[in-house]
Amino acid sequence: MPFSNVKRVLIGEPFPTSQEMHERLDKVRALAVFASDPISSNAYATEAIMSVLIILGSGALHVTLPIGLAVAALVLLVISSYIQTILHYPDGGGAYTVAKDNLGRFPSLLAAAALLTDYILTVSVSVSAGVRAVTSAVPEVFEYRVLIALGAIVLITWVNLRGVRESGTIFAVPTYAFVFGVLLVIIIGLVRTTGLFGAAPIPPSTEEVAASATFTGFAYIWLLLRAFAGGCTALTGIEAISNGVQAFKPPESKNAALTMVAMGMMAMSLFVGISYLSTHLGLIPRETESILSQLARRITGTGFLYYWVQIFTALILFLAANTGYQDFPRLSSFLAKDNFLPRWLQNRGDRLVYSAGIMVLAIISSLIVLIFRADEIAMLPLYALGVMLSFSISQAGMFRLMGRIAHLKPGESMRTSVTNIHYEHGVRWKQGLNAIGSVVTLVVFLILTATKFHEGAWVVAVLIPLQLYAFYSIQRHYERVADALSTHDLTEKDITQVADVVILPLADLHRGSIVALEYAQRISHDVRALVVFTTPEEEERFMRRWKRFNKITCDVNLVTIEYDYRDVLYPIVEYIEIVNGEEFPDQITTVVVPEFIAETPAANILHNRTATRLRTQLMYFKDIVIINVPFQIDSKM
Amino acid sequence: MPFSNVKRVLIGEPFPTSQEMHERLDKVRALAVFASDPISSNAYATEAIMSVLIILGSGALHVTLPIGLAVAALVLLVISSYIQTILHYPDGGGAYTVAKDNLGRFPSLLAAAALLTDYILTVSVSVSAGVRAVTSAVPEVFEYRVLIALGAIVLITWVNLRGVRESGTIFAVPTYAFVFGVLLVIIIGLVRTTGLFGAAPIPPSTEEVAASATFTGFAYIWLLLRAFAGGCTALTGIEAISNGVQAFKPPESKNAALTMVAMGMMAMSLFVGISYLSTHLGLIPRETESILSQLARRITGTGFLYYWVQIFTALILFLAANTGYQDFPRLSSFLAKDNFLPRWLQNRGDRLVYSAGIMVLAIISSLIVLIFRADEIAMLPLYALGVMLSFSISQAGMFRLMGRIAHLKPGESMRTSVTNIHYEHGVRWKQGLNAIGSVVTLVVFLILTATKFHEGAWVVAVLIPLQLYAFYSIQRHYERVADALSTHDLTEKDITQVADVVILPLADLHRGSIVALEYAQRISHDVRALVVFTTPEEEERFMRRWKRFNKITCDVNLVTIEYDYRDVLYPIVEYIEIVNGEEFPDQITTVVVPEFIAETPAANILHNRTATRLRTQLMYFKDIVIINVPFQIDSKM
Repeated sequence: MPFSNVKRVLIGEPFPTSQEMHERLDKVRALAVFASDPISSNAYATEAIMSVLIILGSGALHVTLPIGLAVAALVLLVISSYIQTILHYPDGGGAYTVAKDNLGRFPSLLAAAALLTDYILTVSVSVSAGVRAVTSAVPEVFEYRVLIALGAIVLITWVNLRGVRESGTIFAVPTYAFVFGVLLVIIIGLVRTTGLFGAAPIPPSTEEVAASATFTGFAYIWLLLRAFAGGCTALTGIEAISNGVQAFKPPESKNAALTMVAMGMMAMSLFVGISYLSTHLGLIPRETESILSQLARRITGTGFLYYWVQIFTALILFLAANTGYQDFPRLSSFLAKDNFLPRWLQNRGDRLVYSAGIMVLAIISSLIVLIFRADEIAMLPLYALGVMLSFSISQAGMFRLMGRIAHLKPGESMRTSVTNIHYEHGVRWKQGLNAIGSVVTLVVFLILTATKFHEGAWVVAVLIPLQLYAFYSIQRHYERVADALSTHDLTEKDITQVADVVILPLADLHRGSIVALEYAQRISHDVRALVVFTTPEEEERFMRRWKRFNKITCDVNLVTIEYDYRDVLYPIVEYIEIVNGEEFPDQITTVVVPEFIAETPAANILHNRTATRLRTQLMYFKDIVIINVPFQIDSKM
Repeated sequence: MPFSNVKRVLIGEPFPTSQEMHERLDKVRALAVFASDPISSNAYATEAIMSVLIILGSGALHVTLPIGLAVAALVLLVISSYIQTILHYPDGGGAYTVAKDNLGRFPSLLAAAALLTDYILTVSVSVSAGVRAVTSAVPEVFEYRVLIALGAIVLITWVNLRGVRESGTIFAVPTYAFVFGVLLVIIIGLVRTTGLFGAAPIPPSTEEVAASATFTGFAYIWLLLRAFAGGCTALTGIEAISNGVQAFKPPESKNAALTMVAMGMMAMSLFVGISYLSTHLGLIPRETESILSQLARRITGTGFLYYWVQIFTALILFLAANTGYQDFPRLSSFLAKDNFLPRWLQNRGDRLVYSAGIMVLAIISSLIVLIFRADEIAMLPLYALGVMLSFSISQAGMFRLMGRIAHLKPGESMRTSVTNIHYEHGVRWKQGLNAIGSVVTLVVFLILTATKFHEGAWVVAVLIPLQLYAFYSIQRHYERVADALSTHDLTEKDITQVADVVILPLADLHRGSIVALEYAQRISHDVRALVVFTTPEEEERFMRRWKRFNKITCDVNLVTIEYDYRDVLYPIVEYIEIVNGEEFPDQITTVVVPEFIAETPAANILHNRTATRLRTQLMYFKDIVIINVPFQIDSKM
């Protein structure tokens, strides 16, 4: 078949199930794999703060640094709390798992809904920001940004459908190149601004932007909170390590925890460095050029290092989008396994990846890119909310787990539903840390929701309950299906008997219908050919032919209906209902339908397709078995 | 079902076939019914001439009248020729019928293709011109003209799907009101321009338009031919009476012929009157106001008579569009009956109208309105070509018929394939008239094609051969199908035997599959349950359950396949192919598929739908009968 050939070329040969890879990552590669998302946030997080402060005019931009420091403090708090999660859930402890293990179904689903939303946005935001890095360097392509973004999504989707693994090396190059490049810009910037080693000072920015509004009192604090909320986008992706502990070389938990610390340090030094220099140089956020691009240009000129930073900014952002392709399909397969999402999200495709989840993610994130015309700053109000809510829920779960550990006596162990816990020293301290983490992130979540509400966060506030409703509905549906299919209390009586009757609707007597007649007689002694006549001429013609085929038709009962309308399906369905409902109640009635099959699908539009329409109409009746006896025609249109 | 309720409300209760109406029209109403299309051409035909001449500047517009007279002469020729058709084909003699009866298949199909194109354009052109009448009177809605036009098409489609008949009276009012209004304008105009009864003269137009180009010699003649071609749009719809002779009260032919003469007189007096006054008053064709609107405004002011003319112009144009809804479905049902179009175009819907043909017409004409943005002047180059070609073919057919009549001796009669012919006096004179008619309309067709070619007529030149190709392809397909289904040389051996084997692919043992197992055992002694395992755990679990249901499964052969990929459909199809092709060649193999049916279609997306996919894959294999044993779940999502 041509379709499967196309698929082979695009996706590659299928992998056998037994070939599943269990590659382990060393710390250097693991850092690159997991850090691409949080580190890439540096491409837009500072800008998200500044684009709020600019409302107060360029004079207010110096507040960027203190706000950036507050965000960095929050990151440290979350990281130290997540280290506990890593140590206690060595098999992977995403917010959904931790909440399910400790808090119950509702909190876990709430975390899942929040995370799914955020994973989708990770793709849309990262791709759009990556495109901004491209258009900052090459402004000529600015008007094609939506197309470039959609092309990038198609590319990333294709790579993921082919199942190229997070091979570590692929990730290592752009991640470290980005970190190296930006660090170099920051160091050169610091050297030049401080005049160390007699460096040439950077000429101060002369541009000033007037305040578009003035704020005092609460309104001013509110604006600062909004700026802080913008900076919180730097936290997205931090939790990824907790899901992927098994990807590390042993000792898995210890290596994962160390990597998390390194990642936090790296991400935060870049973030604080960029925030400091941006304010110090008096940069102004603009739509057409990112702050990072402006920073690199001002400090090093539009030379080699500038293009280095821009190229690797774009690449690391596309890699960050790629983490959405890891996280979304995995979480939705967990949910599908627990019957909260369609089961086919668990199915792995030819290349052992969750193809259905990848496609769903690609479609939704493309839609978001289209709606927002690839403007990631406009998407940011929807972003980071979900991740913050999941932080809070996850740490509340850890608080609960620590409480259970606190009840263990020295040397004692027990098993929760997914992990083993042992007696520990100082567990109350850790519990306190989790409590602070949970409360702080909850407060931040509320700040985010409140400050960004009218800018778009309301969408998330609507989407999360809708998702919860869908989860519960889907689960209820599967439960009922399982009940109905259950063989638990099955008795002989429960199995529907098959009535010895076959109804065979006929329009004409031709080779196709004669094969169907033969087939029907093969499986039943009571075959009833059902013919609907709409004119006397039709009846006369049919009866003549019926007699001619006496040898075949002699044992068949002929049921004829005279009908004064054109929709002959209606009396056929009615007759079948009467036979099934009144003559053979609670038994299976068989309907044989001669089905004409043209050689090409196109030729099917030349035929009435009564068989297809009849099948559709009978589908929802109980206890009717439809047999299509196909008759193929070897003719090309 | 909700859909059928919606349909009831929109379309109305179905009519029984026996209730088919055979209303006959008197001459007054018949004139109104059949004349709406040719008379309505007056709304744009003069304008079509002038919009060509204006290229030479306003000074050249006086040529409008002689060109109009040439068009009128052509109309008289066509009418006198068509009267012969009416008299000789009392059962209706459209170009398709006449050509089929006298010239053979190809000319008849050529005429049909030309007419189908023109009927579609009748709808698009008339609706767009009707909308121009509206926007000429109310210029504020000019920018909504495409929407208004599409709305009018939806309305006309709806009325036709409900099957409101050409009740005559509905048509009589706007047709006669339009004729009356325009005649009044013309008379007042003539009175005022001639100064009869001391009428106030109309102030002469001061506006002049400079020539945008100058033409001499052949180029000038070419331009005149183009203007003439524009005026030929006045001929569209003239042939409608010849199709509908049976709609007249007896004596049908005579009444129809008289009506045709009256119609020609009426249409031509309006046409010549409008052409004369437009040039005399120095009107200039404009995009935003039609010539007819300008004429009425100049002669009578923007008063009652002006709005009368505009309102009934719009109405008669929408009625003219309605004639497309009579002609297109009727002609396509003729073609479908002769197997040149999909057979379902013959099916009459609930209200005894050719619903499918109506929908096809509505969709195509809407697309044309969209493409041309409801500008009928831009559509006119495509229009009237088809009708002129069909005139020529039809009259060539009549020429042939007259030749056959000429061979009859006095008192002799004979039957052609569709009509009776008798000896006639002076048949050679009539034949001569037909010859002239056929040649002149052919020449006009060539002029139209040549002059309008680059303006859009090439589209028709492409469409007609494409339609012919489709007609022949469709007919060939149906012929092959008929051969394949034919029972002509059917022998005992030709009827495929049914193999005593049932293959039953299973994924799990649940109530649904147990019903299917029972069913399969009911119809065969060799039931083979086919299970594909992708993991050892699956296999172990299935075998345990299989043993548990020993009472049901003891007589069933279990075929197990271990498969290291996820696409389990592949080995299933492969096994079925082997059984069907090698074990039981040339016999029918039965496949029983347990099919899970959720109560709502929406819930189906929660399931893998293996049954549907399997059916699709097996559809094009020979000699495989698929039995879906459905298992309904009483659960709402």
